[in-house]
Amino acid sequence: MASQNLRTPGPTPLPPGVREALARDMIAHRGSEFAAILRDCTEGLQWAFQTKHDMITLTTSGTGGLESAIANTLSPGQRLLLASMGYFGERVGKIARAYGVDVVQLDFEYGRAVDPQAVYDRLQAEPDIETVFVTHNETSTGVLNPLPEIARAVRQVRPEALLLVDGISSIGSVPIEPEVLGCDVVVAGSQKGWMIPPGLSFVAVSRYAWERQEKATLPRFYFDWLQARRAAEEGGTPWTPALSLFFGLQVALRLMREEGLQQLFKRHQRLARFTREGLVDLGLKLLADPRYASPTVTTAYVPDGLQAKQLLKALEERHGVVLAGGQGKLSGQIIRVGHMGWVQQDDLAAVLRALQVELQRARTPSTAATR
Amino acid sequence: MASQNLRTPGPTPLPPGVREALARDMIAHRGSEFAAILRDCTEGLQWAFQTKHDMITLTTSGTGGLESAIANTLSPGQRLLLASMGYFGERVGKIARAYGVDVVQLDFEYGRAVDPQAVYDRLQAEPDIETVFVTHNETSTGVLNPLPEIARAVRQVRPEALLLVDGISSIGSVPIEPEVLGCDVVVAGSQKGWMIPPGLSFVAVSRYAWERQEKATLPRFYFDWLQARRAAEEGGTPWTPALSLFFGLQVALRLMREEGLQQLFKRHQRLARFTREGLVDLGLKLLADPRYASPTVTTAYVPDGLQAKQLLKALEERHGVVLAGGQGKLSGQIIRVGHMGWVQQDDLAAVLRALQVELQRARTPSTAATR
Repeated sequence: MASQNLRTPGPTPLPPGVREALARDMIAHRGSEFAAILRDCTEGLQWAFQTKHDMITLTTSGTGGLESAIANTLSPGQRLLLASMGYFGERVGKIARAYGVDVVQLDFEYGRAVDPQAVYDRLQAEPDIETVFVTHNETSTGVLNPLPEIARAVRQVRPEALLLVDGISSIGSVPIEPEVLGCDVVVAGSQKGWMIPPGLSFVAVSRYAWERQEKATLPRFYFDWLQARRAAEEGGTPWTPALSLFFGLQVALRLMREEGLQQLFKRHQRLARFTREGLVDLGLKLLADPRYASPTVTTAYVPDGLQAKQLLKALEERHGVVLAGGQGKLSGQIIRVGHMGWVQQDDLAAVLRALQVELQRARTPSTAATR
Repeated sequence: MASQNLRTPGPTPLPPGVREALARDMIAHRGSEFAAILRDCTEGLQWAFQTKHDMITLTTSGTGGLESAIANTLSPGQRLLLASMGYFGERVGKIARAYGVDVVQLDFEYGRAVDPQAVYDRLQAEPDIETVFVTHNETSTGVLNPLPEIARAVRQVRPEALLLVDGISSIGSVPIEPEVLGCDVVVAGSQKGWMIPPGLSFVAVSRYAWERQEKATLPRFYFDWLQARRAAEEGGTPWTPALSLFFGLQVALRLMREEGLQQLFKRHQRLARFTREGLVDLGLKLLADPRYASPTVTTAYVPDGLQAKQLLKALEERHGVVLAGGQGKLSGQIIRVGHMGWVQQDDLAAVLRALQVELQRARTPSTAATR
């Protein structure tokens, strides 16, 4: 089988150096070698997150990282303002409710960004809300929220509020500067812009978040940040870490540093524009509000008369191009093109060429009939 | 640097085929290829667990698997009888208490096994205990509990009790037969006998455990078994899985099948005996009660006048032999030799030779002085 052109919004393809690192044999996770790797990765992550906040790496998918953000900062019955505009925002609501948090959910239409004014108004109307959650980049819709404006709205109404951010499909590919914006907790996931496989989640924790953590009484053990911080001070993790992924992460962070953070941000912006323009040229209608189109994932409606599932299947089987479909209520309605991590314009040009062929084929009835 | 002889009780060395699989590029985790891998792994795990119970694979270290066993079967304030004889038994107590479970902890001396009669007596004295937790193999002391006798004691007093088992350092290397013994939940960890890196936890769940899961109200989301079961029915996992580790697991299970389960159990028994005898021949005193010595990890006291830390350092630096030290109250007192997974007699003979050299060196004052 020819190599795939994997363009889902995570997992993303692995550079050869990362793959080599993944194949390394095991080492002891309590030794000095792992301590050095953990230190190196932590510094690299802080560089990519553009933060001096404490950095915690958990052996879990991104969802576990999000759960840690809830379980470490809230207590049963406490209120959480959740600004949601997609499938992954809704998932945070489910996590928080599962833990008995009183979720005040502010829903925005799929494809639209969170309106900072609505956040402002809601906080003003609800004086007892002290915690706000917002998705930075919604992977299900391809929308990048105007985080600076949202954060400013939060700070204006409730300066002391804790601001939690899902940065799973943004951080590493999109600038954030947690201290500048006043983001207290920022969660990322390894299978996105980091060019390594799924299985690690990175969480930046501000000093103020640590103060809240002390008071927060939701149950937590595996995801307890304090245990992670104490273990890190001794050069390790509280529970056996996914060593292979750390080996890969160390190499990937080196590659990211070689490219340079600003270059990396620019590349993602440029490739996103290239993808959007290409899809529009093919006659596809984009889902995301163009003012907030994501630098890491682009979504487009499946043209009338076509089945998303069949289109995705044809792209994979005939062209080796792997895209993602819609999630939740967008299931069957859209396709999603990931352009984060290890990706260049050629990869996306190939996606567009394959799409062109398949859209044309679908529009030719006789060809369609012989499928 | 020469290749290490890694003999910690997890992580364990990786066979070349597993390392090759770990280096595979990413695939979509919602596609048919991953569905086939998940199905294959699940069947292989059921074979190694010797069970027809549902099998759930979580992207987490073993501790997360244990947390899932607590969070999916208990409700706040419910009582749990915990039979503990080491560091990892105690960890389960900490997890359960963090979740507000009323833990009745039955402690046995480090190095001794759980006494089935004591479990019997305690259950008889406490009629409201409906859940029992026991460690199969205590990694911190090298003791394999007499699980059949313990399970029988539980069933005699309280046939309807739920029996939860930490099989992290036993399953795959030691027989268990959950249905025969009446074990409802059995948790394993990927970095032990499975010959793959840390990052996955395998959980066998009986029908009765599912009934309890429905009623159990402890908060859970990432570790929720029901979400895992539903996703598995669709050929996936609820959250992005650690794909590389699944690639490795598939290969490792194939290697295990080629060896055969009974052969694999026998090899672990044989190598454990070889290690124990070798350590005794070197004049070391073993920690574990010989009647319950573990097939996967052997523990020995550090001789008087020697520092555990220095001995371990010398073994690593001069011989490339990596062993583990003691945990919790055994810290500094013992060394632990892992002999599970991808290990042959030669590997352990090399450990013994290195130990012999270092013990001799330590006993020769002039050499010690020049260190």
